[in-house]
Amino acid sequence: MERTTRRALLGTAAAGALAVGLTAAGPARAAEKRIRVAVLLYDGFTALDAVGPYETLCRLPGVRVVTVARRTGPVRTDTGQLALATERSLADVSRADVLVVPGGGNRGIVAAMADPVLLDWIRRLHRHTTWTTSVCTGSLLLASAGLLKGLPAATYWASRPYLEKLGAVPAPGRFVETGKIITAAGVSAGLDMGIHLAARLSDEATAKATQLAIEYDPHPPFDTGSPEKADEATRRLALKLVEGH
Amino acid sequence: MERTTRRALLGTAAAGALAVGLTAAGPARAAEKRIRVAVLLYDGFTALDAVGPYETLCRLPGVRVVTVARRTGPVRTDTGQLALATERSLADVSRADVLVVPGGGNRGIVAAMADPVLLDWIRRLHRHTTWTTSVCTGSLLLASAGLLKGLPAATYWASRPYLEKLGAVPAPGRFVETGKIITAAGVSAGLDMGIHLAARLSDEATAKATQLAIEYDPHPPFDTGSPEKADEATRRLALKLVEGH
Repeated sequence: MERTTRRALLGTAAAGALAVGLTAAGPARAAEKRIRVAVLLYDGFTALDAVGPYETLCRLPGVRVVTVARRTGPVRTDTGQLALATERSLADVSRADVLVVPGGGNRGIVAAMADPVLLDWIRRLHRHTTWTTSVCTGSLLLASAGLLKGLPAATYWASRPYLEKLGAVPAPGRFVETGKIITAAGVSAGLDMGIHLAARLSDEATAKATQLAIEYDPHPPFDTGSPEKADEATRRLALKLVEGH
Repeated sequence: MERTTRRALLGTAAAGALAVGLTAAGPARAAEKRIRVAVLLYDGFTALDAVGPYETLCRLPGVRVVTVARRTGPVRTDTGQLALATERSLADVSRADVLVVPGGGNRGIVAAMADPVLLDWIRRLHRHTTWTTSVCTGSLLLASAGLLKGLPAATYWASRPYLEKLGAVPAPGRFVETGKIITAAGVSAGLDMGIHLAARLSDEATAKATQLAIEYDPHPPFDTGSPEKADEATRRLALKLVEGH
């Protein structure tokens, strides 16, 4: 009974084909390798920085996403208006195939950059990852951990000068892949990086299907999503909004 | 000392202008009206459906986002790999200016559609909202609550036939505004709807700045984000990935 409803909810045309996947070997069950994705959370992180990559990776065959923070329990975002639950502490997680380091607001990032335990954990995880990634100002944490010296990297548009001070080479684009490190630009760029990473972790067909699974056919109502496309007044107001919290 | 670091982190050119906003009246402080946004969470919701609108609205002047669920505490997503913390129960929240209803996986949506307490809460909130919104299969909940009879509405691409069975008129596009109801298409469409809603709740200049604040200048690596752009094999695989959890 429930199965009938489930089919109906997710399209009727493909229901027959779907039933095979449901009853025999769904993609997750068919996969042999296990891919562990660790998403680091810290007080003052930006929600979409973490959730973008999560949403693009969590349905890939064999992938299991875990959130990790200094302590288990709720971790509050930069605006203080939302919290994600964390089930693993840094001490619990010593290995991951993919590390995702989200960015955060000023307060959160400044504190995280000054946290030797956090930076040491990032360094240790990085030693054995297949991919080490960041979104937005998360690259400032990778740089603070010493992982971006002389390397091209993306970051939040307004933080490029600061990334440079930390020894990296700020680069344009939605994300930058250098060796096993992928850094994404601000906040929403984690979605573009996530789809790219999905192709790396599985294959292009699965990544394309992932893009459809989250119906990622973006049509923002305006065209002010990069500092080059926005005027000076918009840039100032954007920073004021970000600083407001 | 910390203020210097904060300025440096978020761009150097605008630091002077920023200082004014920081010390005098930042946009949030200058706002007089308070806009309460309630994001409904339920077991099996899709993370990005909720976090997309949150991230586009949470920095607007006067806006305060709260997450609401049957019970306070962590609420698990459709994949079971992530949980958002909820601080308000349905009984705690009887009014909101904006209601956001995210979609979910099959199991979560089927259960929510059969939950009279949840549907009644949606109906009661809707009576006094300025905007009632949904993302993805969240429109199936609005329809189940009787709010979409004969109205055009967006939903997850694969769920259009089901939305029609519930009495709504499935419509194309990233989001559909009809009266005070705005329904968005699948998962990531909540970002586009959120920017649109930001303009409605504040003004176009602030919405444009919000888009820059989250650096929303999308460049997905592929072009398979809608069923019309994806081939049959990609559509089938997408549904398999979604059904995998």
